[in-house]
Amino acid sequence: MKIFRTDVGYVVQHAGVVRRLVGDPFGEWTAGDELPGGLAGQRVLAPVVPSKIVAVALNYKAHAAEQGKPLPAEPLFFLKPSTAVIGHGEAIELPPGVGRVDHEAEVGLVIGRRASRVPADRAAEYILGVTCVNDVTARELQKKGGHYTRPKGFDTFAPVGPCIALGLDWSDLRVQGWVNGTLRQDSTTADLIFPVPELVAFISSVMTLLPGDIISTGTPSGIGPLTAGDTVRIRVEGVGDLTNPVV
Amino acid sequence: MKIFRTDVGYVVQHAGVVRRLVGDPFGEWTAGDELPGGLAGQRVLAPVVPSKIVAVALNYKAHAAEQGKPLPAEPLFFLKPSTAVIGHGEAIELPPGVGRVDHEAEVGLVIGRRASRVPADRAAEYILGVTCVNDVTARELQKKGGHYTRPKGFDTFAPVGPCIALGLDWSDLRVQGWVNGTLRQDSTTADLIFPVPELVAFISSVMTLLPGDIISTGTPSGIGPLTAGDTVRIRVEGVGDLTNPVV
Repeated sequence: MKIFRTDVGYVVQHAGVVRRLVGDPFGEWTAGDELPGGLAGQRVLAPVVPSKIVAVALNYKAHAAEQGKPLPAEPLFFLKPSTAVIGHGEAIELPPGVGRVDHEAEVGLVIGRRASRVPADRAAEYILGVTCVNDVTARELQKKGGHYTRPKGFDTFAPVGPCIALGLDWSDLRVQGWVNGTLRQDSTTADLIFPVPELVAFISSVMTLLPGDIISTGTPSGIGPLTAGDTVRIRVEGVGDLTNPVV
Repeated sequence: MKIFRTDVGYVVQHAGVVRRLVGDPFGEWTAGDELPGGLAGQRVLAPVVPSKIVAVALNYKAHAAEQGKPLPAEPLFFLKPSTAVIGHGEAIELPPGVGRVDHEAEVGLVIGRRASRVPADRAAEYILGVTCVNDVTARELQKKGGHYTRPKGFDTFAPVGPCIALGLDWSDLRVQGWVNGTLRQDSTTADLIFPVPELVAFISSVMTLLPGDIISTGTPSGIGPLTAGDTVRIRVEGVGDLTNPVV
């Protein structure tokens, strides 16, 4: 089952049928009337407007190696602002003068309930579902210094979507990234250094997570540059494709 | 003139009289009926619920020296999440097991209008007013690695308030910090490496600032540890005192 946010509100797709979501996707809801024509003709928006995206750095061994960095002893994370979020189909804008900008395909966890100091074995209760995130990064700015906010915080640097997929097993989800149809990243959350329950426990021990917040779980190896005219596509198994042009 | 957010909504204090604010403090508003008894008996809340706090690192030379860091060539900044915000009088909670936690007295700028790529000479049009910020920092976690999100992002680590002061000249505002009545920090924004207009221009060239967002302009020298039972007080000239107990 998948929840999309469209310009006519939240809808739910199940067994090929799209219905209006009646109620609050983060609370009580039911599937209402069928949407005539399904998703065709609807504009799909980013599925949430998060108060924060908590993005995990260096959570795949092969990516740490390609960045020339040692494996972390505990999760490293940073924030991407809500103003960076765009939806499926919207354009990633390359800022002038920042040099190389990279794609980073990631599995995103959408928080369903206010989460503070959640034990790992109860993490599942706080996750509404899974989405695709592209943690777009101005690589040369990142390499200049220790702060990730500027290289990863530009407007349009957080494509999210196309939906929130419910009921997935996030212990072994395939995540892939393509640029112009060429596969660049291909891994699975089975290779995470810090798996999903540990991320929820660790991050929620620092900061309260709110409904709609996103934990982006880190990128596998295979990151690479984007140039104007490219199309980048992120796929998470069971979620679908998040596709964005680069301008 | 000062704008406070209280449990009866926004109010405006001018010439010793407190009136209800009728309208939107980030848009059109007028001063309405006088509040009987003024602020006494009202609970003062954090003056805004920001979508993000953009906090500037190393923006006073003497603080860079006390941290043993070189002066930055361009503004360095990081994000504090909205979940860290508390108001005047609320308690800063020391997380267990993180070691030393420091106060950092700062001048906060409250953004009044959506701001993207604002030129420095027009920055004033986008600033609603000034507030006090305490950029509470788990210093030992900060020293361990380059990411500022965890050491500065704990719940309660962003006291803000007590009000938004309008019409101040932010080119030379005194900022002070006391712990238990002992003055620890004392400087002025005349000593900023990157002054207010340049901060607004630089940050808004990266990420769009929304009404209610805060730019915290950096801390002067004199930072120091907090322990349970302490009271920390931040004063910005023309704003007033932001006082928080430590538990």
